Amino acid sequence: MSGKTEASSGAAENKDYQRLVELLAEVTALRQSGGLLFWDQQTYMPKAGARARGNHLAVLSKVAHEKFTAPEIGRLLERLRDWEETLPYDSDEASTVRVARREYEKATRLPPDLVVRHSRARTRAHEAWIEARQKNDYKVFRPALGEMVDIMREVADALGYEDHPLDALLDQQEPGMKTADMEGLFGELRQGLVPLVKAIAEKADAVDDSFLHQPFDRETQMEVCREAAAAVGFDLETRGRIDLSVHPFTIGFSRNDVRFTVRIDEGFFNAGFFASLHEAGHGTYMQGLPERFEQSILHEGASSGLHESQSRLWENIVGRSRAFWQFYYPRLQKRFPEQLGKVSREDFYRAVNKVEPSFIRVEADEVTYNLHIMVRFELEKAVFDRELGLDDLPGAWNEKFRNYLGITPPDDLRGCIQDIHWTFGFGGGFAGYTIGNVASVQLYEKALEEHPGLEEEFAQGEFSNLLRWMNENVHAHGAKFGPQELLERVTGRPLDAGPYLAYIKRKFSDIYGL
Amino acid sequence: MSGKTEASSGAAENKDYQRLVELLAEVTALRQSGGLLFWDQQTYMPKAGARARGNHLAVLSKVAHEKFTAPEIGRLLERLRDWEETLPYDSDEASTVRVARREYEKATRLPPDLVVRHSRARTRAHEAWIEARQKNDYKVFRPALGEMVDIMREVADALGYEDHPLDALLDQQEPGMKTADMEGLFGELRQGLVPLVKAIAEKADAVDDSFLHQPFDRETQMEVCREAAAAVGFDLETRGRIDLSVHPFTIGFSRNDVRFTVRIDEGFFNAGFFASLHEAGHGTYMQGLPERFEQSILHEGASSGLHESQSRLWENIVGRSRAFWQFYYPRLQKRFPEQLGKVSREDFYRAVNKVEPSFIRVEADEVTYNLHIMVRFELEKAVFDRELGLDDLPGAWNEKFRNYLGITPPDDLRGCIQDIHWTFGFGGGFAGYTIGNVASVQLYEKALEEHPGLEEEFAQGEFSNLLRWMNENVHAHGAKFGPQELLERVTGRPLDAGPYLAYIKRKFSDIYGL
Repeated sequence: MSGKTEASSGAAENKDYQRLVELLAEVTALRQSGGLLFWDQQTYMPKAGARARGNHLAVLSKVAHEKFTAPEIGRLLERLRDWEETLPYDSDEASTVRVARREYEKATRLPPDLVVRHSRARTRAHEAWIEARQKNDYKVFRPALGEMVDIMREVADALGYEDHPLDALLDQQEPGMKTADMEGLFGELRQGLVPLVKAIAEKADAVDDSFLHQPFDRETQMEVCREAAAAVGFDLETRGRIDLSVHPFTIGFSRNDVRFTVRIDEGFFNAGFFASLHEAGHGTYMQGLPERFEQSILHEGASSGLHESQSRLWENIVGRSRAFWQFYYPRLQKRFPEQLGKVSREDFYRAVNKVEPSFIRVEADEVTYNLHIMVRFELEKAVFDRELGLDDLPGAWNEKFRNYLGITPPDDLRGCIQDIHWTFGFGGGFAGYTIGNVASVQLYEKALEEHPGLEEEFAQGEFSNLLRWMNENVHAHGAKFGPQELLERVTGRPLDAGPYLAYIKRKFSDIYGL
Repeated sequence: MSGKTEASSGAAENKDYQRLVELLAEVTALRQSGGLLFWDQQTYMPKAGARARGNHLAVLSKVAHEKFTAPEIGRLLERLRDWEETLPYDSDEASTVRVARREYEKATRLPPDLVVRHSRARTRAHEAWIEARQKNDYKVFRPALGEMVDIMREVADALGYEDHPLDALLDQQEPGMKTADMEGLFGELRQGLVPLVKAIAEKADAVDDSFLHQPFDRETQMEVCREAAAAVGFDLETRGRIDLSVHPFTIGFSRNDVRFTVRIDEGFFNAGFFASLHEAGHGTYMQGLPERFEQSILHEGASSGLHESQSRLWENIVGRSRAFWQFYYPRLQKRFPEQLGKVSREDFYRAVNKVEPSFIRVEADEVTYNLHIMVRFELEKAVFDRELGLDDLPGAWNEKFRNYLGITPPDDLRGCIQDIHWTFGFGGGFAGYTIGNVASVQLYEKALEEHPGLEEEFAQGEFSNLLRWMNENVHAHGAKFGPQELLERVTGRPLDAGPYLAYIKRKFSDIYGL
């Protein structure tokens, strides 16, 4: 009899564990309900419903927090310590208790007063950010950002950390990931990417993507988005849907109800199509979570970064590959004969991979994207280390852009007030994007070892072996493991920039003839 | 200084009242959140999401119940008794305490065990009902219905009543309404309607509605539904929306986010159009609730029946009037020139008012509709009085149909298993439909006294005086008063079949030349 089976049969008899699972299921249900309210707010809610929706979301999150931090959960977790140690680390039961304990400790370490002040600071920061954007002036945002930074220092202190306050914040998104890990990662990326960006900039004209910037009918684009998402394995039939919203996002209320949104730009093909593949990637992660986790605290991805690894995998490694367009380009040409009838497949492939240093992160290409994240990470750390004052933030931002990307943002809108993230918090909120990019290649190459024919399959429109590999190796674990743990288990090593840099260099040296 | 103002300024100082309002706002938010989950389930939810959605709804309703029946609410209500008596009965404060106490007492009188058994019985009844419908056989539903009847007897006993167990059940839908009231009402209706139905049946051929049964394009029908709902004053711009679902319904998550659904029948004009006016009527009630009630327990209609008075008002009294079609028929003809180009306005008016005894309640016309309800009410009462055994229900149903409508249902599907209501409970669940029909005329005639030119206004497409009157006299009170109380306040008398019967006789004697 395996340890797993023993543990499972023990679980049925452990009343404390059963009760814990029952209580956590309520918390999960409240959170997933809040998720639907958010989805509706972004898609179908009549405008005037906003105020009541804000109240509803606040109540759901308050009640979920109350339920999750209830003393009974604390007592159960204490009583389960001994039992947990008899179980295999990766069993459902041990993982449930472990993850619940980690989250419970975080949630109960934050004094309610701080949670309330954080929430108020978010509201103020959001308002100030909106106004700052309207006026294209960082100074309008500066006071609210100062308040946010102070609160995030308090949050970090309350959560606790060993080495650096950012560790505490980073751990909320990427359990187990350290600031030092991120610094090592960015160090390698800086070394590999900055010279590559320079080399490509000298050959900027080698790739022409002007035909992507022409009118593409909205309805047809939407059909193409649906077709491509379904082709790579996002279940749109009975377990998912796609809608429109201003900012694309993916959300799931269970593995059997996963929805994403896209934004269609009638003058630019990439905006809708690659958002669809990106969000479909997140969607496959959620749809791939095990059925038995449905009401469990494990019914989540490993981290923001691991989630992003799946979206970047399908958006970039698959969606911007020659093999993918071998399959899909003839279909796309049939949909847009006027726009693409005379564009060769190779020219199209090159165009969707055009590299161009730019100011706006969400529009960045595969090569420059991580430099955008690096700028934010380094600035956050400098602020936390009190090496950079907030008054000097725009100047520091622009200087880093010059150094890494060779361009200078002409104003704050195209500089340090472009992202919404600093209205939620400050510190660690961007790391997941780079972790995702790096992990996507690390995971893909492992999949490729086991299925060397993947690219030939893509060229035939066959993606199920790759998806199944991700299902079995990544999605199947839900939130059992942190990102480093999961990568080590699956690829034999923690997050490693090597495969990513090699992939980027190989791909873009080819495209740009370096 | 008025009593109202004194009370209001007192409220700000009464800490117990403030706390009660705060706790009730959480309950309201949880219920309204559940409402959105239900709406989504009926409109956009991917099919496979059903199981998780069921869990989410169960948790939300459990948590709302826990919060509402919390001992703290009981203590606050006790402590507020003396204060409440110093306040004007109709003040917001006294009404909030009064309605909260009434609902709290009901909610706490039901033993948790009974609530759970009722909920399970619903699930079983629903499954049995579905199967019974598939097999067109009441006997399949019979055992589950028996269980439901037993449970509803227990519910009635737990809630308590003075005269008849049905009073307790009726009071849940129609606060303050008694079984004896309903019997009196149906007595008058029976006397007035049964002979009228017979007289009309003899002139059945006087009205031809065959042109309503031809193909009407789905999209155009939907546009017409939207246009008509907006014309009568349902705010679709920023505070509402219309979607499609299998069964039309209206739901609000606040007065500023009210949604209804319609079902379009491509072969029959009435199904979509009058559902839209009907649901728009419910919608105007919700949108007409006072802003200051938004998070309050008063943010509801007075009762199911009063709600129905608003839907029937716009569907029938307005929507099936000559004046309405004077305004709208030319517009409709433009939308459907092939179908209606050669049909005169008068013929159209007569067609949408065709009276025809039929088996299915939801398809019944204005004259026969209440007879459908009467059948159900009388059967429920006979079962509660142990005068009718459940084995004999189909026979009794069919006999009543013969007596009142002159037709005999050919099978159970077109007989006693057509409605879903007995899967939720048994007793009092249909009364609101008839209360609504009767109250709609009573209210309308009062409005007409104050605005004698209403019909001329309808003919011009002007509905705002009627809507404003309903806003001020009905909607403005939210859930402060029960249906009888509200009708007395507004019209000077309780529910009264007289105006309704006079309206029906006048209208249909004219149409059928009686």
